[in-house]
Amino acid sequence: MPHMIVRGISVLDIQSISSALIAELAEVCDCGTDNFMLECLSTVSIFEGEICATYPFIEVGWFERGPEVRDAYAGVLTKHILSLGIPEVEIAFKVYKEDSYYWNGKLV
Amino acid sequence: MPHMIVRGISVLDIQSISSALIAELAEVCDCGTDNFMLECLSTVSIFEGEICATYPFIEVGWFERGPEVRDAYAGVLTKHILSLGIPEVEIAFKVYKEDSYYWNGKLV
Amino acid sequence: MPHMIVRGISVLDIQSISSALIAELAEVCDCGTDNFMLECLSTVSIFEGEICATYPFIEVGWFERGPEVRDAYAGVLTKHILSLGIPEVEIAFKVYKEDSYYWNGKLV
Repeated sequence: MPHMIVRGISVLDIQSISSALIAELAEVCDCGTDNFMLECLSTVSIFEGEICATYPFIEVGWFERGPEVRDAYAGVLTKHILSLGIPEVEIAFKVYKEDSYYWNGKLV
Repeated sequence: MPHMIVRGISVLDIQSISSALIAELAEVCDCGTDNFMLECLSTVSIFEGEICATYPFIEVGWFERGPEVRDAYAGVLTKHILSLGIPEVEIAFKVYKEDSYYWNGKLV
Repeated sequence: MPHMIVRGISVLDIQSISSALIAELAEVCDCGTDNFMLECLSTVSIFEGEICATYPFIEVGWFERGPEVRDAYAGVLTKHILSLGIPEVEIAFKVYKEDSYYWNGKLV
């Protein structure tokens, strides 16, 4: 944790920013860089009957860390995505609860 | 928003209903048709050791709009899916919170 | 329901455990084996600029069943995954609400 599931941005683009991005997010979250999962997910988007480009969207799965960390996290993530020349990105946080998250069968 | 992530239904099927579906959902939600994301997601489903067809399932990610809009949304979406000759579909709503959803780094 | 979306574990591995896994989970949940959806989802994971193996992760979507059933569910699922020789797996539960889950347009 946190997990980032990226849609609508290429693997190559994400590769190019991943080291700097994760280093900065680790500072924001005060945790190690190896706590993060960064994954690109392919989908086929459809608009008006045609296949179209998927809108850049990142879902962040994490334990709630409060509004300041969340704002900072979204700010860092957005900054790196926009640095790719992508004009718009949306980020949604999905909260996992500590009592419902297991590592090797044990609550974390 | 809203986002629809479709599993177990072909891209061609979704293309064939997308314009009429989104037009009707935009009326239900009282918003523009370009607010919607409609995406097909491929998964490999397994039952009793064998790869099998994925059950038709749509996850709708949105801000909570209350039971009447939700029922109407599910009704419209179901009607269009069943019109494809698909006998069953399940729809689950996943609620994003306004304080955890960012457009270009700003809360929406 | 429940749904399991598996990342970072091969389809063949999941096929090899699926029958015994689902049989045991059906006992834990006191429901039929055909209530489950078990799906492998491909993502491309990135770490330090390189594509890497996706960390074994399973998201379980279900209606809340309380801590005892949840612990038992995570225990059974973990046991079968570790039996594959996979050293670590994380499992997160995502709760759907009965008032937001539709089968063929009707609340279930």
